[in-house]
Formats: sequence, C-alpha cells, structure tokens
Amino acid sequence: MRYGEGKVAIVGAGLAGSLMAVYLGRSGYRVDLFEKRPDPRIEKGQRTRSINLAISARGLDALGRVGLDREVLDMAIPMRGRMMHAQSGRLTFQPYGVKGQAINSVSRANLNLVMIEAADELSNVCCHFSAVLADADIDNGVLKIRDPGGGSISETYDAVIGADGAFSSVRAHMVQRQRFSFSQTYLEHGYKELTIPAGPNNSHRLSRDALHIWPRGGYMMIALPNIDGSFTCTLFWPHEGPNSFEEVSENEVVQFFESNFLDVVSLMPSLMEDFASNPTSSLATIRCDPWHVGKAVLLGDAAHAVVPFYGQGANAAFESCVVLDECLKECSGDWRSAFATYSHRRKPHTDALADLAIGNFVEMRNRVTSPMFLLKKKTEKLLLRTVPGYLPLYSMISFSTIPYAEAVHRNRRRNALTRNVVLLAGFALVVLLLSYLLG
Amino acid sequence: MRYGEGKVAIVGAGLAGSLMAVYLGRSGYRVDLFEKRPDPRIEKGQRTRSINLAISARGLDALGRVGLDREVLDMAIPMRGRMMHAQSGRLTFQPYGVKGQAINSVSRANLNLVMIEAADELSNVCCHFSAVLADADIDNGVLKIRDPGGGSISETYDAVIGADGAFSSVRAHMVQRQRFSFSQTYLEHGYKELTIPAGPNNSHRLSRDALHIWPRGGYMMIALPNIDGSFTCTLFWPHEGPNSFEEVSENEVVQFFESNFLDVVSLMPSLMEDFASNPTSSLATIRCDPWHVGKAVLLGDAAHAVVPFYGQGANAAFESCVVLDECLKECSGDWRSAFATYSHRRKPHTDALADLAIGNFVEMRNRVTSPMFLLKKKTEKLLLRTVPGYLPLYSMISFSTIPYAEAVHRNRRRNALTRNVVLLAGFALVVLLLSYLLG
Repeated sequence: MRYGEGKVAIVGAGLAGSLMAVYLGRSGYRVDLFEKRPDPRIEKGQRTRSINLAISARGLDALGRVGLDREVLDMAIPMRGRMMHAQSGRLTFQPYGVKGQAINSVSRANLNLVMIEAADELSNVCCHFSAVLADADIDNGVLKIRDPGGGSISETYDAVIGADGAFSSVRAHMVQRQRFSFSQTYLEHGYKELTIPAGPNNSHRLSRDALHIWPRGGYMMIALPNIDGSFTCTLFWPHEGPNSFEEVSENEVVQFFESNFLDVVSLMPSLMEDFASNPTSSLATIRCDPWHVGKAVLLGDAAHAVVPFYGQGANAAFESCVVLDECLKECSGDWRSAFATYSHRRKPHTDALADLAIGNFVEMRNRVTSPMFLLKKKTEKLLLRTVPGYLPLYSMISFSTIPYAEAVHRNRRRNALTRNVVLLAGFALVVLLLSYLLG
Repeated sequence: MRYGEGKVAIVGAGLAGSLMAVYLGRSGYRVDLFEKRPDPRIEKGQRTRSINLAISARGLDALGRVGLDREVLDMAIPMRGRMMHAQSGRLTFQPYGVKGQAINSVSRANLNLVMIEAADELSNVCCHFSAVLADADIDNGVLKIRDPGGGSISETYDAVIGADGAFSSVRAHMVQRQRFSFSQTYLEHGYKELTIPAGPNNSHRLSRDALHIWPRGGYMMIALPNIDGSFTCTLFWPHEGPNSFEEVSENEVVQFFESNFLDVVSLMPSLMEDFASNPTSSLATIRCDPWHVGKAVLLGDAAHAVVPFYGQGANAAFESCVVLDECLKECSGDWRSAFATYSHRRKPHTDALADLAIGNFVEMRNRVTSPMFLLKKKTEKLLLRTVPGYLPLYSMISFSTIPYAEAVHRNRRRNALTRNVVLLAGFALVVLLLSYLLG
C-alpha cells in the first residue's frame, strides 16, 4: 500500500482529529471521521460559553501546511505579552517575545469549525456526527459505531486514529494490553471558567493585546480576550483545603473575589451565576508508551494531554498531526512502521512539554511577581537583543518549531554555561580582591 | 457503625483478599469473598506448575497477628542468602542477614490455600468461587456477581475491597473518575518460569538454603527451592532486541542456555518443552492515588503491584492488610475515614517499595558480581557486627517492619553521613601529606 492509498477511521473530530482528516484527505486517503457530539455547524448560530486557547508558531505551522493559517489568524486576537495584576491593582506588562511576536487568542469552537469545514469539503472525507464508538477490534481495524437512533454499523479500516481526547475510548482498548504503559495524573488544582462581558460597542474592558494574569501564590486567575469584546477568565484553584472549590461556598465567592481580584470584580456582573452554573474541571496529564497497538494509533490529547499552563496543548496536537503525516510519508504508507516511528520520535517531545506545562503553573502563580523572575526576564530581553541567535526557552517553545525536548535541552545547557561563567567571574573577583587586600 | 459491624465484599481471594477476609472475619464483620477462579481446594491434589515467592518479616508479622505464621513457615524453605553462579560456574554465597535470618521460599498456591481455609472456617465469612464481578456501583457499594451458570446476583455492601490483582476490575471503575491518578508502567524485560526437577528421593540438585542467581548484566535467571526437591527458575529476559524472547527461537534456547547457564542446563531436562509451553509474562508497576473511591478501596497488587526483585510483593500486600485493619480500628469502623487514612498513610511506603524493587533488578543483574558491590556488602557485614543497632537497607526491608519509606530515608541519610566522613578523612589525609611535604 502506498502513501495516500487506503481507508482510515479517525475517532474524534476535535482539534487533532479534524486537522488530521484534512491532512490525510488531501493526500488521497479515504477518511471516515467520527464524532460523538452533534454537528457543530448546525448549532453554529447559537451562543455557547466561549472557551479560548492560544495558537502560536507550532499550531500556525501545522495549519499553514494545509493553507488554514490565514483563516485562523483572521479570527484571532494577538496577545503580545502577559499583563500581571498585583493584589494592589498595579499592572506590569511583560512582552512574550520581540516586537511583532504574539500568541493568538482564538475560540476553540471557531477554530474547530474551520477545520471541520475544510475536511468536509474534501470528497474523500466523510464526517459522521453523533456517532459513538461502541466497540473496537484494534488488531484488525474493525470499529462498531452507534448512531443516535440506536442502530450500529461495523466497518473495517486499514488504520484507526484515536483522536478522542484525554479520556479516549480508543485508548481504553490499549490500556488493557500487556506492556502498554499508561499514566493519568491530576493536579491538586481544578479550574472554572468565568466571564468579563464586552463593554459598549464590543469594546474590551481590559487591554486586549495581553493575556491577563492575577498571580496569587497558591492559586491564580487568567483572562484571554475574545473577538466579541468579552474576556474568558479561568480561575485555577485547589480542589480541597482552605480557599478551594470545596471550602468556599457560592455566597462567599464575591467576597473572595473582592479580597483578591478587586480590580476586576466590578467587570464580572454575572460572577455568582457563572460560578454556580459552570462546571469545576480537573487538570490531567496523560502519558502512554507506546502510542500504537495493532492497527490503532493515538493522536493529540488521547496520547499526550498536558495541563494548559504553557498554552501548548492545541499547538502540540497540531504538531503531532504533522509528525504522523511525515512518518507515513517516510514509511511509504506502511501504517505499522509509520505508527512505530511516530510514537518513538514524537513521545520524548510531548513528555518534555508535559513537564514544562506543570512547571509553568508554579511560575505563573508565583514567580511572575518575584524580583528574581523579573530580573531574569530583563536579562533574557537584553540577551535577546544583543546575542545573535539567542532564544529564551519561552520563545523556543512558542515562537519556533524546535522540537520540545531539544528546546529544553538547549536551555538546560545554556543555564549551566551561564552559571559557570557567573561562578568563574565571582571567583576571579574574589581573587582580585584578596590580592588587592593582601598585596 | 462500630468496628466489627457491617457487611463487606472482598473481590479476589488471592493473597491479599483471603488474608483480609481472615482479619475482618475474626473482627466480626460479615464478609463475602468473591474469586473468579474455581475453588483451589477442589483441585488440591492435582499437580500444577509451581510458582513460589519469598515470605519475610513483614509477611510473617501480618500472618502472625492471626496465628497463621507457624503453618506457613512449616511448609517453607528458609533461604539464608544469595548464591551467585558466575559464567565460569564459580559460586559465591552472600548471606542476606545475620546468623539465623532467612527469607522463606513458599509455594504461592499452598500459601493461598492456608488463608482460604482459615477464612472459610469462620462462620461469618462466605467464600464464593467461580464468581465474576460483572458490574459495580462503587458509590453505593452495589456489586453484580456472575456465577458460572450465567446467572447473576446484585448485593449491597457497606464496603467493597478490591483485592483483585494488578489488572483489577474494581480499579477499572475508579480509573474513569476525574481526579483518580493512575499509572501502569512495564519493564522492557519479561519473564518465563522453568523447572529444575528434584533429584533422587526428593533431594535438591542445588544447595537448598539459598536463592540462586545467574547474573548476566542485561538479563538474569534465578531459582527458588520447592519443598518437593525441585527448583522453580525464572528467566528475566528483554522482550525485544538481541537475546530476547522475541529474537531467540525455541530451537536456539538450549544453545543459549549452554552458553550462558552451563552449570545448570544439565539439570533442566524439560527446558525446551517448558520454554515452549510456559507463558512469557510482563513486569508491571501499578500506582494509584487515592486508593479509594466511594465505598470501594484497593488492597494488594490492585493498589500497588511492584516488580518482584526485592521479594516484597506478597509481604507488602500482607502488610497493607494490617494497615487497613489498623485504620479501621482507629476510625471506630467508619469506612470512609478509614479508607482515606489508609490510602494516605500507606501509599508513600508502597511507592518507595516500587522504586526499590526496580532498582534491585539492576543490582541483581549486574552489581552482585562487581568488586565494588562485594566490598560494600563486606563493609555492611562489618558494620552489622560492630555498630549496635546498625541495619543495612536489605535488612530493614526484609528483616524488620520499619515502614518502607522510612527505611529508604534512614539509608539515604546514613549514606550521606558516610560519604561526608570519608570525604573529611580524605581531606585530612591530604592536608597531613601536604604539611609533611611542605614542612
């Protein structure tokens, strides 16, 4: 079987699944894309709770390869840096990169729609909505799909791609196998989405070119701008203990916000209702090894869900589509070896990202306000302007496509070098001082 | 509800489940013990492949609290140390502890029988064999159990104990829950059991008071004595790559053994048949957090399966029964708080054991033959004889009931101290030498 030949099932038409359908469809594969939720185009007009995410270099690269980057950028709001809101109300702006660099706040639903529409335009891609995976024989590529009427069909595929998210049903068939290593780990913090509605004439009530952060040590809130003038806020809070989702009652919420997010509470008129009606969600990291069993392979959150603190979950999922497609080309369409190459090549990088994302939570909550952190950021800015080719870790992750693990490795080596140079300089200074004092 | 009052289901009548049934039964609880396999007492006479394990201080302590230690010791063979078989055939014996200390080789099946019989003797414990868990509502303590005839009953319990092993069905109901962290990790090595049959008159063909090891770097074989004169050998070998289960064909096995285990191959007449017919098994480590959801809790391998290289899997499972029972007493029979206390108190120790067990695999394969390792063992022996209260790590794990994580911590602190003393001595020596040379 050559690259571009064969019949593929993709389970899940979220971000990873729908982009992969575009990639494979354009290469000539016959693709069945199954999604358990109803067709989002039917409900397109209805207003639902907006959830947004940040698309940066990796995501744009993956979208650009199939010509979808422009359309996505057109509906995004560039965020040039972090705006920190101190307890006192004082604001500090830290640019993410150099002039012109930004990460892009985009509605998850609209982003997904772009890709579903691009997939559905292809005659060899067939999208099935309200189609639930009832059973799978992953060794033989047989899927049993149930439709909303209760009927079900079984179909055999050359390959099955499980792009069905952090709680993947395809993966559930792999976890039972001997020698399939798997872990799901939860943070002690959960999150809840809240809203800052638009001002008059769809104006933004906070500066719209920044990701806003209220770092408070043990917890934090962030806000990303939406194109309609509103902001989607996310409160990251411990599930249990003092000041937690469990301990603070709905009545105490406004009081809590007034004590801790005073500068913004007046912009959140529906705070109490949002808090009561929006769900409290958990933050999981998923790791598997390998990413494939039999004729099935995992893609996106199903293989490598990460916590959202580096703004890389969707970017990483898109980048994985690129890697899987590249492996398939390299292996001339041989699925089994393509899956093995992909799993082996890609996993170290998403593992590195998982650690980065957890680490960045601590940074966002605490260190963004510490003098040492601000000094470090200033030094980075200085180096960025003076040393040719210098890229801080954040820039390597968000504004380049250097593979994640390599970026981490480069940064570590550079930090060690810097430390040694500083130590050496300090030592030289002491020697000079001593020789001055003694001689 | 007081301690000793209420109705409990235990799923799995393996080592942990059957001992827990004895503990709870003796305290007055009404216990239903469900086991999916048939009653082992019915097939008691039949000879099956013997699998053995090593019972040491922790296991004996847990058995002793319900008066079962004597019976188990009577059917065990004490192993005083490791007998290393070098490639050349040269033997080296390393005692495990001081005179009189030994770990005890015992048949898993016979050990299990002792506890099932002890449980079944209690009028308030009811053992159900060939009883499969079909479904569970762990929030409400409702179990649906299927019998071999295909019928099924549903029953409600005050508490459900999942003691159904590394691939626990009870745990499967927990893994789906938000905020239940879980990991299963496999080693690259698998294992296969082989046999050295008894000599004339049930005599042992190798010294019977030792655990035999053939350390070969990338792989190893071990042999434990059985009471009938035979030895059960276990070959730990990589699943894949050169010299692995995948690469070496059944025909090449004898040749491989002749090259690597020459001193024992003549004692294994059924090597080729055993190799072909016995399964190749995997080596998994299981970690969960927490160990309880709703009315259900995990016990033994279901909560904390470890690789077998410290000989502690069964001992840890027995010790967990003691801890769970203690927590239940402390919480005056309140299951929910007992489960939370047990999970919180016990998990750090089985996590420490999991790391120790993986680390010991490297030691057994390689370092048991290295001069540095032998020097370390000799130093430990010297300290053991001269320093009052000194216990090497192996002794703390195998010959004491010091909680695992505490043993690891004590050992680490001691190692740091030793390193500093040695460094200081070295520094003093250098200073002395310099002052001698310069003065």
